[in-house]
This record gives sequence, C-alpha cells and structure tokens, in this order.
Amino acid sequence: MNQLRAQANGRPVLGIPEATVARLPVYLRALTGLGETGMRTVSSEQLAAAAGVNSAKLRKDLSYLGSYGTRGVGYDVEYLRYQIAREIGVNQDWAVVIIGIGNLGQALSNYGGFRSRGFRIVALIDGDRSRVGEMHGDLPIHHIEKLDELVAEHACSIGVIATPGDAAQEVADRLVAAGVTSILNFAPAVLAVPDGVDVRKVDLSIELQILAYHEQRKRAPGEEVQA
Amino acid sequence: MNQLRAQANGRPVLGIPEATVARLPVYLRALTGLGETGMRTVSSEQLAAAAGVNSAKLRKDLSYLGSYGTRGVGYDVEYLRYQIAREIGVNQDWAVVIIGIGNLGQALSNYGGFRSRGFRIVALIDGDRSRVGEMHGDLPIHHIEKLDELVAEHACSIGVIATPGDAAQEVADRLVAAGVTSILNFAPAVLAVPDGVDVRKVDLSIELQILAYHEQRKRAPGEEVQA
Repeated sequence: MNQLRAQANGRPVLGIPEATVARLPVYLRALTGLGETGMRTVSSEQLAAAAGVNSAKLRKDLSYLGSYGTRGVGYDVEYLRYQIAREIGVNQDWAVVIIGIGNLGQALSNYGGFRSRGFRIVALIDGDRSRVGEMHGDLPIHHIEKLDELVAEHACSIGVIATPGDAAQEVADRLVAAGVTSILNFAPAVLAVPDGVDVRKVDLSIELQILAYHEQRKRAPGEEVQA
Repeated sequence: MNQLRAQANGRPVLGIPEATVARLPVYLRALTGLGETGMRTVSSEQLAAAAGVNSAKLRKDLSYLGSYGTRGVGYDVEYLRYQIAREIGVNQDWAVVIIGIGNLGQALSNYGGFRSRGFRIVALIDGDRSRVGEMHGDLPIHHIEKLDELVAEHACSIGVIATPGDAAQEVADRLVAAGVTSILNFAPAVLAVPDGVDVRKVDLSIELQILAYHEQRKRAPGEEVQA
C-alpha cells in the first residue's frame, strides 16, 4: 500500500492509509451530528471525542486530506464535512445489489443508514426460485439468473453478499462476471476475487470474538499480571 | 496500549496489538477449514493465503502467541488452532443478550456462526411491550424492564444492541447498569461507556463507504495519476 501523498487541486493523489480510510466515515458522521447542533467550528479534541478516537490520531488522519484546522479555532465544521464526503465519494450515487434475501438480507434491505449516505439498494436477488416476486419495501426479489441484466440496467458497482457461506464464492464469481468491482461480504467465507475487485468482510462472530478476547482478560486479571 | 510481551505458562501476559487481536478469529476460521480437509501442518504462506493476509504479517501476529512454527515444516494445524482459540477465549461459553428485535435483531438471533464459536444467545429483548412473548427460534421476546433479571440469571457479559440510533445510549446505560461489560453496537450512534466496558461498533454503512472510497478511485484513475 503506497502511502505517499501529493496534492492536485487540494486532493491527495496517492493512497491514504487504509486505517485512516476506515475512520473517515466515522468523522463524517460525527461532523454531521455536530453540525446539526448548530456548531460552526470544532476543535480536534471535540471532534475526536465525538468520533471516539484520540485527537492526535484525528489530526494525523485529517492531515492526509490537507486539513490542518486553524490554531486556536479548530476546523470549520461544514467545510471539513464537505472535504471528507468528497474524499469518500458519498456525494455520489451508488447503486447496490443485495444477494441472499434471508433474515440478514432483509435487514440490510431495510437499513435506514444506506440511502442517506448515497447508497441506493436497486435490486434484491436470491437463488430460491419460489421467492421470486416477494416484495420487500418497494423491491421484488429476482432470481440470480437475472443478475447480469440487473447489474447492467442499474450500473451497479457494489454487491452485498448475504448468502450462506457455501454459496458465497459462486455468487462472488457471478458478481465479478457481471462487472461488479466492490463486494461487501457477510457470508462466513473467504472470497477469492481477481485484482481490481475490492472485498470487505463483515463477520458478526469475529466482532464478538474480539469482545470475548478482552472480556476473558477482564475476568482473570490475576493471570495477566503475574510474570 | 501496552504491547510488551512476557510469557507465563506459554501465554502472552501483556497486550497483543489490537490489529492482531482482530485477525486472530480470521486465522482460527482458516485453520478450522484447513483442518477439516485433513491437513496436519500448514506453511505460513498457505495459512496466510487462506486467511487473506500477507505471510509476513501472519508470522508476526503468531509470534505474539509464542508460535513460530518449524522451519521447513510450518505450523501444526491442530495445535495452532488450540492456541488461538484459547487466546481468544472461544473455548469458553459466552452468554449473549440481544436488545432490539427488528429485522437486524432477528437476523442476529438466527445467525449460525455464533453458537459454533461459543456464543450462546440467551435472551431477546425489545422496548415494544406489544411484542413480548413473540417467539424467534427457541427464544421469546422479553420487555427491556426484565434486562437486569435476565443478565443476572444467565450471567451475561456481552450485550448486542440492534436498536435505532436514538435508543442506543439508553440501552447501553441499562446494559452497563445490569453488569454487562462488553457491547457490540449495530446502532448508528457513538456510545459513551465507563472505563472497563468495551464497545465494538459494526456500522454497515461505514463498510459500504470504505468500498465507495476505493470504487471512486477505480472510476477516475486519471485523476489519481496526474501530479
């Protein structure tokens, strides 16, 4: 991962570190919240607290966007919000297709936080032919054989996989063949995709396992201290 | 975060870096998969490929567990699996309560990947009194006023919040008051909790925003290259 930076029209040209990219949406949400309370400027400490990170990390992250704030004043809330939104691309419209309309797929299709960030669910797809036509909100379920057609029709670049684990690789292959280049994977499977396709994995049990790691250490503090 | 290490009974005593902790469950899953195919030993390259990380990072991560493998042979699959599972604590039984039984809460209550990793959903809780008694799988929905009682009865240390954003902080406060010390938060809200309570946040739109960041760069490669 190349972390060199250069500026062209005020934008970083080369990569921002992946960990920073992952925090930008958190800052964006925090700024939106602060803006809604009428706040015009925000110190790095205030913004860091709202985002749940430390302020040194926040300042470093924002420096990748060329945002350094004003000493003694802080950051302009609206302008920083605009800068981050542009950097992430949430000012654009993203067409998203969901494959696998079980409990999780249904939950995702109803998730309120998508549309407000520029993500528009345009199609629900399942492998079970008996469910074709079933409505969820405004959208009917289509059979997976319609995938190519739907991806082309809506110019989808993002696919969400919410199938069981054993179906996920085949679905990923079909998404890639249809021209999708970003995949959000909820299935318990590690996906192989060609270069140029990004996969992000959300594994709910992994998040719980990370909590368990820390919880275990809280339960047995004596064991941790003795050397 | 203290990253010093020391060994007592073969276990790291002080902290493992947070990024390594987050990858341990991924290695565990990869090892389980490899073990099921009958593989007895695995090279760092093979395991790294199965887990989707690079092998230098894998070797570094495993060194925190005191696992260095054998030159020319690699790692013993079963023993490494045991070491990681013990480190994370997934050999234990974790009682989990879910609060907010909308689409997402229902999806989580049915999520197959929990029980196999030691996580047992013991109670479903909602703020809507009209839904009390509604069954999901083996479990009825309880009203949130029963939270203290249910957490105590099942010795829950982990709570999952799947409510709307505006209810999440109150639910977190109630969980903490009931004695829960680890919270997995799906609600679109940054939670304030006392020291000693861990919160991990899963925001589905944030994962999509990270994909959008990369997708935007794929769409306009010319803009990235010029300096």
